[in-house]
Amino acid sequence: METTTTTLAEYLFKRLHQLGVDSIFGLPGDYNLQLLDYVAPSRLHWIGSCNELNAGYAADAYSRVKGIGALVTTFGVGELSAVNAIAGAYAERAPVVHVVGTPVRESQESRALIHHTFNDGEYKRFDRMQEHITVAQAILTDHRSAPAEIDRVLQQCLLHSRPVRIAIPLDMVSLRVPKMALEHKICVPLPCRQPQLEDKALKAILDRMYSAKKPVILVDGEVRSAKIMEEVEHIVKSTEWPTFTSGFGKSLVDETLPNVYGVFTPRYKDFIDSSDLVLCFGPHFSNTNSYLYQTVPQQHKTIFFHPTSVQIDSEIIRDLPANHFLPQLIGHLEVAKLNRYTCNFDHPSSVAPPDVQASDLVTQAGGFWHRMSSFFQEGDIILAETGTASYGANEFRLPPKTRLFKAVTWLSIGYMLPATLGASLAQHDLIARSEYHDFLEARSILFIGDGSFQLTAQELATIIHRKLNVIIFLINNDGYTIERAIHGRNQGYNNITPWRYLKGLEFFGAPTEGEYAAHTWQVRTWGDLEKVLTDERMIKGKGVRMVEVFMDRLDVPPPLDRILEMQIERENGVQ
Amino acid sequence: METTTTTLAEYLFKRLHQLGVDSIFGLPGDYNLQLLDYVAPSRLHWIGSCNELNAGYAADAYSRVKGIGALVTTFGVGELSAVNAIAGAYAERAPVVHVVGTPVRESQESRALIHHTFNDGEYKRFDRMQEHITVAQAILTDHRSAPAEIDRVLQQCLLHSRPVRIAIPLDMVSLRVPKMALEHKICVPLPCRQPQLEDKALKAILDRMYSAKKPVILVDGEVRSAKIMEEVEHIVKSTEWPTFTSGFGKSLVDETLPNVYGVFTPRYKDFIDSSDLVLCFGPHFSNTNSYLYQTVPQQHKTIFFHPTSVQIDSEIIRDLPANHFLPQLIGHLEVAKLNRYTCNFDHPSSVAPPDVQASDLVTQAGGFWHRMSSFFQEGDIILAETGTASYGANEFRLPPKTRLFKAVTWLSIGYMLPATLGASLAQHDLIARSEYHDFLEARSILFIGDGSFQLTAQELATIIHRKLNVIIFLINNDGYTIERAIHGRNQGYNNITPWRYLKGLEFFGAPTEGEYAAHTWQVRTWGDLEKVLTDERMIKGKGVRMVEVFMDRLDVPPPLDRILEMQIERENGVQ
Repeated sequence: METTTTTLAEYLFKRLHQLGVDSIFGLPGDYNLQLLDYVAPSRLHWIGSCNELNAGYAADAYSRVKGIGALVTTFGVGELSAVNAIAGAYAERAPVVHVVGTPVRESQESRALIHHTFNDGEYKRFDRMQEHITVAQAILTDHRSAPAEIDRVLQQCLLHSRPVRIAIPLDMVSLRVPKMALEHKICVPLPCRQPQLEDKALKAILDRMYSAKKPVILVDGEVRSAKIMEEVEHIVKSTEWPTFTSGFGKSLVDETLPNVYGVFTPRYKDFIDSSDLVLCFGPHFSNTNSYLYQTVPQQHKTIFFHPTSVQIDSEIIRDLPANHFLPQLIGHLEVAKLNRYTCNFDHPSSVAPPDVQASDLVTQAGGFWHRMSSFFQEGDIILAETGTASYGANEFRLPPKTRLFKAVTWLSIGYMLPATLGASLAQHDLIARSEYHDFLEARSILFIGDGSFQLTAQELATIIHRKLNVIIFLINNDGYTIERAIHGRNQGYNNITPWRYLKGLEFFGAPTEGEYAAHTWQVRTWGDLEKVLTDERMIKGKGVRMVEVFMDRLDVPPPLDRILEMQIERENGVQ
Repeated sequence: METTTTTLAEYLFKRLHQLGVDSIFGLPGDYNLQLLDYVAPSRLHWIGSCNELNAGYAADAYSRVKGIGALVTTFGVGELSAVNAIAGAYAERAPVVHVVGTPVRESQESRALIHHTFNDGEYKRFDRMQEHITVAQAILTDHRSAPAEIDRVLQQCLLHSRPVRIAIPLDMVSLRVPKMALEHKICVPLPCRQPQLEDKALKAILDRMYSAKKPVILVDGEVRSAKIMEEVEHIVKSTEWPTFTSGFGKSLVDETLPNVYGVFTPRYKDFIDSSDLVLCFGPHFSNTNSYLYQTVPQQHKTIFFHPTSVQIDSEIIRDLPANHFLPQLIGHLEVAKLNRYTCNFDHPSSVAPPDVQASDLVTQAGGFWHRMSSFFQEGDIILAETGTASYGANEFRLPPKTRLFKAVTWLSIGYMLPATLGASLAQHDLIARSEYHDFLEARSILFIGDGSFQLTAQELATIIHRKLNVIIFLINNDGYTIERAIHGRNQGYNNITPWRYLKGLEFFGAPTEGEYAAHTWQVRTWGDLEKVLTDERMIKGKGVRMVEVFMDRLDVPPPLDRILEMQIERENGVQ
């Protein structure tokens, strides 16, 4: 009989492992120590993080690469430190499982006055707070229903690609539960055919596609969470229609394809407004992902493919999950009936960056982001933190099989450094499973401003000690430059304390010699940059490499340059 | 007419300044930039913090010294990062004002899809989440009621000594409001005399006091938030009764008084149980503040003085605010009627630490905490982070006019380093107002483990660049030693990454020469420690001084030593 049961903790962790969690983030705490005893036996790698916010950010990034991510925190103090990360996962659709170790049920039921509470016997506050930022919650109290509760919330996590929370009292960790259900991996509930709806939608879409003279395709970021990246790339390739991405969608379709023109910036607006059909996949139109709504396509000529619905003109046809419906559309599509046309834009890959001299200072106008593109390789994950980096990233020319992380809507500064930990570990774990294309190694490359770096800098230690293949370009522009562009360009509140950034590697314990020796550089001119990018230690080094790139306090990429001009005009009384 | 109004932002910040906020913590963000324009004109010092959690911790500590503290964050991303700190302020009664800059009302009302939201038009989530961790909330939407709303929540903050939240839409910041109310500082509503209740309570208490043969006094931590420190010290002095404190109460009564015997540890339990009356002031009986409830005095012989009630036996007489009732008790008390007696305990100040040799390694058993006491001076604030430091701090012998911060109930590791920033700034601001006793300078001295240090390490930068008089003793015991004592003493999840801690000062930008040059030391033996404590650079240095003290991974003070033994017994099958 023994073999028909397992512990509740193992049930949970094995479920996570089945779904693709190989590494799990978090910190120990008084109410999760016994739970953590089951991590390694369940074949998960424990990644002790420096704090819970960082663990949450790392799990978020891990999930965006690997399809699921998880962290473990402790009741109250631990879980509350992570809520900003969990909220960001909700906003931008990252499937994160937040496991919280809670006090034994006897304490909770007797309203005992214990630490990590408000000393008032009320234990439910943290549950209530996190209902607002998770798509499903399980508060485990009974071993009989616990496995099904775990499965329920994990399904919701996958279905919506949004975070869930599982609270486990310390005294339930080692309770026995049936292990039979573990024989089958959890699946997202399958959609049923909805013939009437599907026929209606297919006819309307195909009619519009066949009659379009000047159609375009717009790929936005929710194609990742809707799991339709392959289908969308198929449509982009087979139609050969001019294709753009949003910032969120960038890297989700191969932008070396001849008909993919990079990010839909306002300079393309007239062209897209003059089209007669827009196929818009995975739309996510926050102000920051749409150049203040300038690049939202006109509704009357657009077909929007949402995660579970299709919108044609003003009509929303629901109950058509995109990853179920798009294969049908592809199956019915007769490409011979489509109009092909050429548009006059140069492909971004054929546009040269501005001319500069080796002795010139590195600047935005000199094409920093554009120039960095030559450094990128297939398999790279490139991360561009909120700020000038995130806007600059729209200028990147990305090789195939790369992924770009950039700030989209949540825009919590500090996210990208722990996200680099998470993304790099996801690469590492995929390579270990032979599931990362055919690569045997791969880099994660972070671009981050000095201001953002300060919020979560300590997670660099975890990157170092996990021996991850990470390169960091720290843009030192002496403060919160993006805020200076928006308001207060000369105000003290946009200043930060000056650090000796490159000393961080030594502080956080990086080896100074040997295979994983860390290397650092400072860059002020284009000549400096060229030397760094061709340095053997950069190219062949295995330890963390960190480059401090100095830029002016007010050197910003579009559209921040225009926002800064407007601020100056306001100050000068020009409205 | 112009002079009868001011801006809403100035109204808020001037109110805070009137109440004692001289320095305000926080970070700029898109929805608070214009609000921050009013900080300096309102005579507040802006303390840009490295992240919002740290800002919250700093504001909490500032408030515990100065009677009120404040931080400013931005909508969503900023405020959620601070919630753990706000919750801690609630749990341990710190009067913190959390000001959040929110999007313009037009965005909120039109449900615009903007950044720092979930891109779904729902703006109320963060309000709802924080109702659970604040004692009052103001969501400003109308300039006519805004000043009264601000005043209402500030009163609640002071009345309960607990955090409040004020949300200000960006487009309300510069609206005009009447400034007349600013002529009078906000007061906590005064209590009315309740003659019947007061007479009953006074009679019962005085009867018990006059008849007691062997009474004792117990001072717990809520005497600070109840604002009865002076009254309690008066009673301790005038009764001359044997007095103990809890860990939370330590330093809140002058422990050099001959009848104050330090922390009520289980070794005094028999004595206190044998007493016939306990006067217990500001009780706060969480498990961690009461040696797992061992030191909760017996109810039938104890009079509990709560913030707004008195409990005598099982009867609670409410509506007797302690800071109103205790002066009455003192006024009626005839000390000549009290029994005096001597107890046989040595005063802690007369107990010598264990004998050690200069070449011996520094250990808990060798009396590290006790020995450190000779280093303390009047005016010091001493901070002992959760972990071995917090338990060890019970051994400190504190001079008069010192304050001890130690983990009590919330126990969020990472708190104490930013708290050191807040406490040191509060000292600085009090000295500037000539309100810090008669001191012209004062030190803040932090004891923190390596594990806790990693969570919030970057706030050291703010301490450095504000030129604060801070000394840090970092206990390097190679991981989460307190967790190892509880469970998993050999488990990997209690490990941390090894840093070169003393390099942090250089990394964070500390001067290497000049008046504020930082100094560092490493200590392994008692001889090393002695050298450091007598080093001129330590004694006369003005920059941050940091000492790395190495201890064994399992070297813990009581009662953690017993908890560790129990773990080992469990592993060996001894229950």
